[in-house]
Amino acid sequence: MSASPSSDASGAGRPLKVALLGCGVVGTEVARLLVRDAAELAHRVGAPLELAGIAVRRIDRERDAELPADLFTTDAKGLVSRGDIDVVIEVIGGIEPARELILTALENGASVVTANKALLAEDAATLYEAAEKVDRDLAFEAAVAGAIPIVRPLRESLAGDAVERVLGIVNGTTNFVLDAMTTTGSGFTEALDEAQRLGYAEADPTADIEGFDAASKAAIIAGLAFHTRVSIGDVHREGITEVSAADVRSASEMGCVVKLLAICERIDTPDGPAVSARVHPAMIPDTHPLASVREAYNAVFVESESAGQLMFYGPGAGGAPTASAVLGDVVSVARNRVRGVVGPGESTHAQLEVLDIGRARTRYHVAIDVDDRAGVLATVAQAFAEFGVSIKTVRQEGHGDDAQLVIVTHEAEDAALSATVAALRELDMVRDVSSAMRVEGMS
Amino acid sequence: MSASPSSDASGAGRPLKVALLGCGVVGTEVARLLVRDAAELAHRVGAPLELAGIAVRRIDRERDAELPADLFTTDAKGLVSRGDIDVVIEVIGGIEPARELILTALENGASVVTANKALLAEDAATLYEAAEKVDRDLAFEAAVAGAIPIVRPLRESLAGDAVERVLGIVNGTTNFVLDAMTTTGSGFTEALDEAQRLGYAEADPTADIEGFDAASKAAIIAGLAFHTRVSIGDVHREGITEVSAADVRSASEMGCVVKLLAICERIDTPDGPAVSARVHPAMIPDTHPLASVREAYNAVFVESESAGQLMFYGPGAGGAPTASAVLGDVVSVARNRVRGVVGPGESTHAQLEVLDIGRARTRYHVAIDVDDRAGVLATVAQAFAEFGVSIKTVRQEGHGDDAQLVIVTHEAEDAALSATVAALRELDMVRDVSSAMRVEGMS
Repeated sequence: MSASPSSDASGAGRPLKVALLGCGVVGTEVARLLVRDAAELAHRVGAPLELAGIAVRRIDRERDAELPADLFTTDAKGLVSRGDIDVVIEVIGGIEPARELILTALENGASVVTANKALLAEDAATLYEAAEKVDRDLAFEAAVAGAIPIVRPLRESLAGDAVERVLGIVNGTTNFVLDAMTTTGSGFTEALDEAQRLGYAEADPTADIEGFDAASKAAIIAGLAFHTRVSIGDVHREGITEVSAADVRSASEMGCVVKLLAICERIDTPDGPAVSARVHPAMIPDTHPLASVREAYNAVFVESESAGQLMFYGPGAGGAPTASAVLGDVVSVARNRVRGVVGPGESTHAQLEVLDIGRARTRYHVAIDVDDRAGVLATVAQAFAEFGVSIKTVRQEGHGDDAQLVIVTHEAEDAALSATVAALRELDMVRDVSSAMRVEGMS
Repeated sequence: MSASPSSDASGAGRPLKVALLGCGVVGTEVARLLVRDAAELAHRVGAPLELAGIAVRRIDRERDAELPADLFTTDAKGLVSRGDIDVVIEVIGGIEPARELILTALENGASVVTANKALLAEDAATLYEAAEKVDRDLAFEAAVAGAIPIVRPLRESLAGDAVERVLGIVNGTTNFVLDAMTTTGSGFTEALDEAQRLGYAEADPTADIEGFDAASKAAIIAGLAFHTRVSIGDVHREGITEVSAADVRSASEMGCVVKLLAICERIDTPDGPAVSARVHPAMIPDTHPLASVREAYNAVFVESESAGQLMFYGPGAGGAPTASAVLGDVVSVARNRVRGVVGPGESTHAQLEVLDIGRARTRYHVAIDVDDRAGVLATVAQAFAEFGVSIKTVRQEGHGDDAQLVIVTHEAEDAALSATVAALRELDMVRDVSSAMRVEGMS
């Protein structure tokens, strides 16, 4: 473990050695800025940052000409085991070898900055414990919503408040696709094709469109907001592949837009407060601040007891924005190294129960194609009543063969709402439940 | 100076003594939460927070029944001089006695949390220096935009990035008044009356409507964003008292709204980078994220080199939101006390020149009532050309006695633009310059 370096205000302390793991889009940008902005960063840290090595999988790939060739190595394990590295930046992603490298880096006395949402959502506890054991920092602002400061606000700015609910648009690909469907009226497949053509969706878009990426971020947010350990297995997850042009139209008719939301909330149960974390498409009113988040932008909307409603908005991905978040963390943990201190660690003292989606309180929008004959409305209304679900608004449209009932419920347990929808599908006079989607952000 | 207290993860370290200076709306809320949430805050800090005293001006006022009467004292100086206080919270406001009390608190070894924008904008340097001398924290998230985390994001999250520009709606009263004018078409006086009636403006609204409050916040933001000492004297300030219903209508006709903006930006000059900080009403396009900030809400829009465009939105004032920001800082500095460390101090290494408003690059919207006769447009256009100002759009409306020219310029030095307006007023065929306002956020 390296000794605590000394410093002075002019940035002239002993240089801190920085190792970079991964040199893709984000890594290249981080390395480039570490070199280009070295003088300015030294002032901000109180000591120069010296890029000591860059671990890559393939040494023969063409690299940014500004980066010294002799920094590159394929021996990531060797780099983090050197023992003289002060800060390790991990932008490889995925579970292994990232986890092993981070743990090795910490064991060797480095502070760690990571953008790895999948690993944090899978196993943050192991990383936190390893960092605490050696009195080093584990920072991960870039893991949630790219350049948007949300980890630090939750960990520090709101540390004196009680967060009640977080609604996040935390995946740019799905927001781009849903925004395109809203703007053009196109279907999901067409909008996804367009997103891929423009580079907003990957060739294999599964992690984004099935909600895995957003679910990782939901786990991280819920853990920070509620001082409770939450992992991706605790997060209910539905992607956007089933969202249809009809859903988007139906949303529009009631003054809403469809967004993929990561929702983390505190729920008061008879047994005391608990936590729910879920990712699914939802309709939100046009007037909600999240409704105007367009294209691939991200935004996180926080409701807390004292602060009220806050929103954080910005680019949620991309090389430069993610590099901004990574370098903000690098400056913070490097400053801490200079002073021989560490920032806040894991906070899980609340240990709240994480509830199943069935116990979350939601409201549904349901569009039902029905036979237009006497007694239909009564029968449908009865189905809702049987599950204790109260109807907020009902609209009947069309006639003859085309009759449709559009119903918005009051808040109820999600289990009761989904059971109602299942029961509706079984009714003789119901031809089809053409749209069933949760509604959020409605007062 | 008190010794560094020990701690464990359960919040069972030696209690930290907290002194509160001021018990108005914000102070009462802070005190109430410190008492009510004592157990939770102890977990977050790593040690209990013990409210040790509350300094007030008048001891006989009725107080919150939850607050022990024996905590109150009129001897603020005595309270901060006791020598056993770990954290002092200053919510008195104003320059003196706040400054003297904060300095005394620091000299006696306390960390300080303050919401005092006026003092920070006037004399942050003295406070920072005093804090650094004794190795204590000076935190002031609540001084800018109430509950919205903006101080910490600028100081820490964006510490690895280069901020280029900050546009802020940082005064709730003026935003409420301008929003009312926009919504109802009313004039300034009528909208201000309404704001006062609803409690959004004080009986003496000068500090808000003349832009002093926003200018203080601009000074604080500019200092943090550009690592340069900026005080309120460096900030160009215009209030909203001259904004007319005609200005608002004229803005609306070009797809804009009028907002009071605090604008802090880096300007590249032939002599290198410099800083400009200014507060004035401006037209911004309806499509700009700041345009949808309604009523008394605040928002801060940040443009930085790597992160791109970020926005932070929320309630900018009020007892509970401000208490949230204060308590977030209290938890941070108390955590630091438990560990015997301090957070980041003043960062002024860049020492950029702060430019006069005349050297800022702006664009103007000008509405001119003219005689409708041959050669008017040529003469007016010539006036712009003489000052090197390039016209972006021109619209001529009405005829006969009512002819009006509405001109939007390209970007130019503010001095050239204001000189142009002055010259226009001198033209024979110009009856009146009925609206002249800067336009921001237009690409």
